[in-house]
Amino acid sequence: MKKATIVGATGFGGLGLIEIILRHPGLEIKQLVARKDAGRPVSDVYPHLKGFCDLPVYTPEEIDYSGIDIAFFSTPDRAGMTLITEFHKRNIPVIDFSGDFRFRTLEDYAVYARNKGMEDTHLSAELLPKAVYGLPEKYADEIRKAKIVGNSGCFAICMTLGLLPAVEAGILGSETIVCDGKTGVSGAGKSSGEANLYPQRHENVNTYREGKHQHLVEVENILNRAGGKNVRILFVPQIVPLNRGILVTSYLDIKKGHDTAAILKLYREYYRAKPFVAITDRSPNTAEVRGSNRCLIRPLVDERTGKLLVISAIDNLVKGQAGNAIQCANLMLGFDETTGLAIPAFYP
Amino acid sequence: MKKATIVGATGFGGLGLIEIILRHPGLEIKQLVARKDAGRPVSDVYPHLKGFCDLPVYTPEEIDYSGIDIAFFSTPDRAGMTLITEFHKRNIPVIDFSGDFRFRTLEDYAVYARNKGMEDTHLSAELLPKAVYGLPEKYADEIRKAKIVGNSGCFAICMTLGLLPAVEAGILGSETIVCDGKTGVSGAGKSSGEANLYPQRHENVNTYREGKHQHLVEVENILNRAGGKNVRILFVPQIVPLNRGILVTSYLDIKKGHDTAAILKLYREYYRAKPFVAITDRSPNTAEVRGSNRCLIRPLVDERTGKLLVISAIDNLVKGQAGNAIQCANLMLGFDETTGLAIPAFYP
Amino acid sequence: MKKATIVGATGFGGLGLIEIILRHPGLEIKQLVARKDAGRPVSDVYPHLKGFCDLPVYTPEEIDYSGIDIAFFSTPDRAGMTLITEFHKRNIPVIDFSGDFRFRTLEDYAVYARNKGMEDTHLSAELLPKAVYGLPEKYADEIRKAKIVGNSGCFAICMTLGLLPAVEAGILGSETIVCDGKTGVSGAGKSSGEANLYPQRHENVNTYREGKHQHLVEVENILNRAGGKNVRILFVPQIVPLNRGILVTSYLDIKKGHDTAAILKLYREYYRAKPFVAITDRSPNTAEVRGSNRCLIRPLVDERTGKLLVISAIDNLVKGQAGNAIQCANLMLGFDETTGLAIPAFYP
Amino acid sequence: MKKATIVGATGFGGLGLIEIILRHPGLEIKQLVARKDAGRPVSDVYPHLKGFCDLPVYTPEEIDYSGIDIAFFSTPDRAGMTLITEFHKRNIPVIDFSGDFRFRTLEDYAVYARNKGMEDTHLSAELLPKAVYGLPEKYADEIRKAKIVGNSGCFAICMTLGLLPAVEAGILGSETIVCDGKTGVSGAGKSSGEANLYPQRHENVNTYREGKHQHLVEVENILNRAGGKNVRILFVPQIVPLNRGILVTSYLDIKKGHDTAAILKLYREYYRAKPFVAITDRSPNTAEVRGSNRCLIRPLVDERTGKLLVISAIDNLVKGQAGNAIQCANLMLGFDETTGLAIPAFYP
Repeated sequence: MKKATIVGATGFGGLGLIEIILRHPGLEIKQLVARKDAGRPVSDVYPHLKGFCDLPVYTPEEIDYSGIDIAFFSTPDRAGMTLITEFHKRNIPVIDFSGDFRFRTLEDYAVYARNKGMEDTHLSAELLPKAVYGLPEKYADEIRKAKIVGNSGCFAICMTLGLLPAVEAGILGSETIVCDGKTGVSGAGKSSGEANLYPQRHENVNTYREGKHQHLVEVENILNRAGGKNVRILFVPQIVPLNRGILVTSYLDIKKGHDTAAILKLYREYYRAKPFVAITDRSPNTAEVRGSNRCLIRPLVDERTGKLLVISAIDNLVKGQAGNAIQCANLMLGFDETTGLAIPAFYP
Repeated sequence: MKKATIVGATGFGGLGLIEIILRHPGLEIKQLVARKDAGRPVSDVYPHLKGFCDLPVYTPEEIDYSGIDIAFFSTPDRAGMTLITEFHKRNIPVIDFSGDFRFRTLEDYAVYARNKGMEDTHLSAELLPKAVYGLPEKYADEIRKAKIVGNSGCFAICMTLGLLPAVEAGILGSETIVCDGKTGVSGAGKSSGEANLYPQRHENVNTYREGKHQHLVEVENILNRAGGKNVRILFVPQIVPLNRGILVTSYLDIKKGHDTAAILKLYREYYRAKPFVAITDRSPNTAEVRGSNRCLIRPLVDERTGKLLVISAIDNLVKGQAGNAIQCANLMLGFDETTGLAIPAFYP
Repeated sequence: MKKATIVGATGFGGLGLIEIILRHPGLEIKQLVARKDAGRPVSDVYPHLKGFCDLPVYTPEEIDYSGIDIAFFSTPDRAGMTLITEFHKRNIPVIDFSGDFRFRTLEDYAVYARNKGMEDTHLSAELLPKAVYGLPEKYADEIRKAKIVGNSGCFAICMTLGLLPAVEAGILGSETIVCDGKTGVSGAGKSSGEANLYPQRHENVNTYREGKHQHLVEVENILNRAGGKNVRILFVPQIVPLNRGILVTSYLDIKKGHDTAAILKLYREYYRAKPFVAITDRSPNTAEVRGSNRCLIRPLVDERTGKLLVISAIDNLVKGQAGNAIQCANLMLGFDETTGLAIPAFYP
Repeated sequence: MKKATIVGATGFGGLGLIEIILRHPGLEIKQLVARKDAGRPVSDVYPHLKGFCDLPVYTPEEIDYSGIDIAFFSTPDRAGMTLITEFHKRNIPVIDFSGDFRFRTLEDYAVYARNKGMEDTHLSAELLPKAVYGLPEKYADEIRKAKIVGNSGCFAICMTLGLLPAVEAGILGSETIVCDGKTGVSGAGKSSGEANLYPQRHENVNTYREGKHQHLVEVENILNRAGGKNVRILFVPQIVPLNRGILVTSYLDIKKGHDTAAILKLYREYYRAKPFVAITDRSPNTAEVRGSNRCLIRPLVDERTGKLLVISAIDNLVKGQAGNAIQCANLMLGFDETTGLAIPAFYP
């Protein structure tokens, strides 16, 4: 059995990891770490875990670095930025959930950080060139060998998977892609402040950070590295009253001569060997991916305007976070990519 | 007191009318008509009306045509198409909630009907040229004199109000506008079938009729009559788990040289005299218009891509339906446009 | 026009008052006061008020005591306990939303405070004997003359109105009454902490403070003063995923010989002259009272067990808070009890 | 591998079975049967099953009776009443989800049927004496040998598990037990009519069939067979806006001398060997059992009134339906009781 340590174990990201590792045949938890809730069994924080996982939560100072095969950092931006070097020094591979290691240059990190309203100097800059972007559908080979993986952002995964086949096929008709995103509230985490109190979120929908969401940078990076030429995303996120789920509707200008059948074929071929991407010719529902690691994608060409429409859906806490991280870990640890992740959605 | 008859009184549209008329100082209900629930007091169908409105519901055959100042048809598409002629013959002005009288040509109606999957021959074709489109922010003068008003579709109102100022200013940079819409479930009406059962809608978001929603036709008509040149809308609607609310995020290519400040000024001037349109520089929330007749609009220019972004929000049952109809009725009956409608949103 | 000052103006209670006063023909707002948000227009805090109420929010230090006809304290427990004396000194009648003035004795207050986990010494003890309990269906005469009214708790109103007729009729068969309550989340207020974040409340129901909710004391007080003999309530509250609404299901042992018809008659007679209590023989829905000041009550006798079942429903923010306060204010200021409050529920 | 046939495969009950069997190491699906949706792959009805279960749905006429180890009837009341005899004749054990085989006498069935508003004559009366009530925590031995199991009702399971220890311990102080139940909407099934449309259920709570719910009969039967003396339940169900979850708050008169500590001990001992019942001294949340087969029970004595309070929570579609059925099937087929069922709740 391989052993995993989870730092930031008591947020939704940490919880997601625990739940998947519980059903993973080759992975088990070595230590749970979190500043908050330290000293209590995790099943005291999350009573539904009682009998399944009753491990105690340790402070970062109490980390035992021996015998760890992989470490997950499910910490907020910048919270684990320096602690990660302790694992790296000891040659323990790390998968980080924040944006700290999603970029190779200080410039890109700085744009990301400023979009999110944070301090923009990186505290472990020397590690950035070594970090691999955690999108296994695109970078499986790099991830297999990586020592630091920056797990993709939830919105970024949903957008990127929806756009890659069209971008790589070179069919874009203009540089600008419009992505209209909708996300459930859990994406904001377990302690996300007054704006996410039930009465403010229930029976409400609104846009936020229009054109300035921090995930923009990573999506544009990936698309341009994948063959896009100066692709620019206009991304408008919206919060909708769901616990889980992201739906992104993307609008692309494409060159003439591609109809829905051809595009479906292109997408199906692109993802043929990718176990977690399902191409469909029906309208995706977020409920159909809830609790699963699947990304559901429907591409179609609008005949009236000639635009390519791509609708993609994921569970923001699974394929958008913990599930994607375990998928990366499977690659890094030599397991089959789907180990522990091959379960259908939780419906209804 | 002016007297109103409501046909289709026991759906959500009819209910919306009853609730507004109850607080309208110059309008009262003459007769409630509905095939379903006929013979019962309306407060038996909607117990919250008890003590406020206990009028009985009559069948269409029992309509008393005397002394009616205005008739509202809150009936499904095609259900009132011929009965409306009975009112028209007697010179009673009618406001129809369906799509039956939103078009001036049989061709436009046929496209609308086919998009909605209905029979496409019009049964009262002779009335079409007389019908006025019920968008009071644009057609107040025609509505004042109209005998038949086709109340705008809920999505259509939200889109059109968001797009008109830009289109009329002649700043569009391309013919295609992308509109990404999100609607609550009540828009589908009170008896809308298995797809709208609670377990199927709760904790779920999905697109539907991508690029083929029936409201497309009327929006393009209005925009092109208002100065647009071959404007084409790519409209993708989404159902979100709300009772009430529509949010539309529109993406327009515009000519260079317009920044957010200039566009805000343009929008504010365009709607200066329109009591129900509020231009804002903050992200609109559907909760801020719930229960009110207000349309909240935020236009902003995305500097990275040069696109104009317009976010517009309404309550689909008020400004998107019954409130808009009363606004039209106020114009037709000589009341101030805001009579009975000047109440703030119901929050939280 | 009478003039009202609202202290604690930017919580949900203050907002509820503003919304009702906006439609009240005899009352207007003199000053809005709140520590938080001071210096901003209230329509900046609640954008849906823009154009309806744009008054600024003042700090408590900036209160202008001249020309106030009534003051509402929509502040948390103990926050206004001493400031209220400033109004009282100036002979300005006050309605307080907290539990600070719901009790006549220090002992009762202390039990209440301890149940809520607060400091239990009262800081304005000299005012307690003058305070009147704000339940207008029972204490209208005292309220008319009162200078300090302790507005009833939301759960307390719903329970008390459901139980009073049976208790006063002397038909109880035992001293213990079971009350099973369900409340929406807005009852916890606008800034209620991590437990009320959307992901924790959505798709969740749970009990809390079983048998120890702070409203117990006031309900038992009122029932025993009204003729109950050592009535004891076993009250178990539950949070359900609603914004607004309280439903209480009460179970009473009664003496033999009373069937549902007789009890319905008893209840209807008891509340005959009470405009906001509606007795029904159908199952109440919280949606039928949402946004209204109505309390809906269904009493029925279970023939198999002989118990009396009473189901009562209110909107916790209206009849459970701001609406009830305005009802009290109407009595104190000489208006008809229903002024500003006679609107039907907001449905759906 | 044992083989299971599911009749009524495309409702929520059938779906629940499919999902559990997919992860069951010893059970696989032989045939899916349903009148509705026959001829389509089940993954066409439930797209989230694509790739996990793509079996076709057959009509009842197409059932292949060979090689079936167990049959599940997830059909509405009376729909499978005669078809079940076909399986019984062939000695295939059957677990039925409806109320058809939950009773041993025609009288009990008739009361059940009338409470639910159905025809009350049983069409396979000869099988009733052979049927075993499907509550494995109580009747494991009988279930192991049974050929027909009437799977318990969802509310019945939650109530009965909460009450059995107290009833069997002989500590009841009166014959009447009050049970106040709250259920999510999925309990009503996938095609449950207009009352369960989203706008009618969202933001709404109401009681129904007060004192007359059909599950009463089976609960009283079990309790009285287990040592209760003329126990009578006053059960009031409530629908709350959840997809999944049942919370029952029970109020029992008990003899003096039992405090919470003693009762906790009693409950813990009673369920010591029962893997799916968890006794807790914290307030149960339905979210803590969502998706799991666990029943969470908190018993506590209210010192002020002397009553015993028991709060029990389940997921109505798992422990309240498909999970409980698989638990029975495990007993009948010789598997460990927890096979395929040992997963934690799905949270958040």
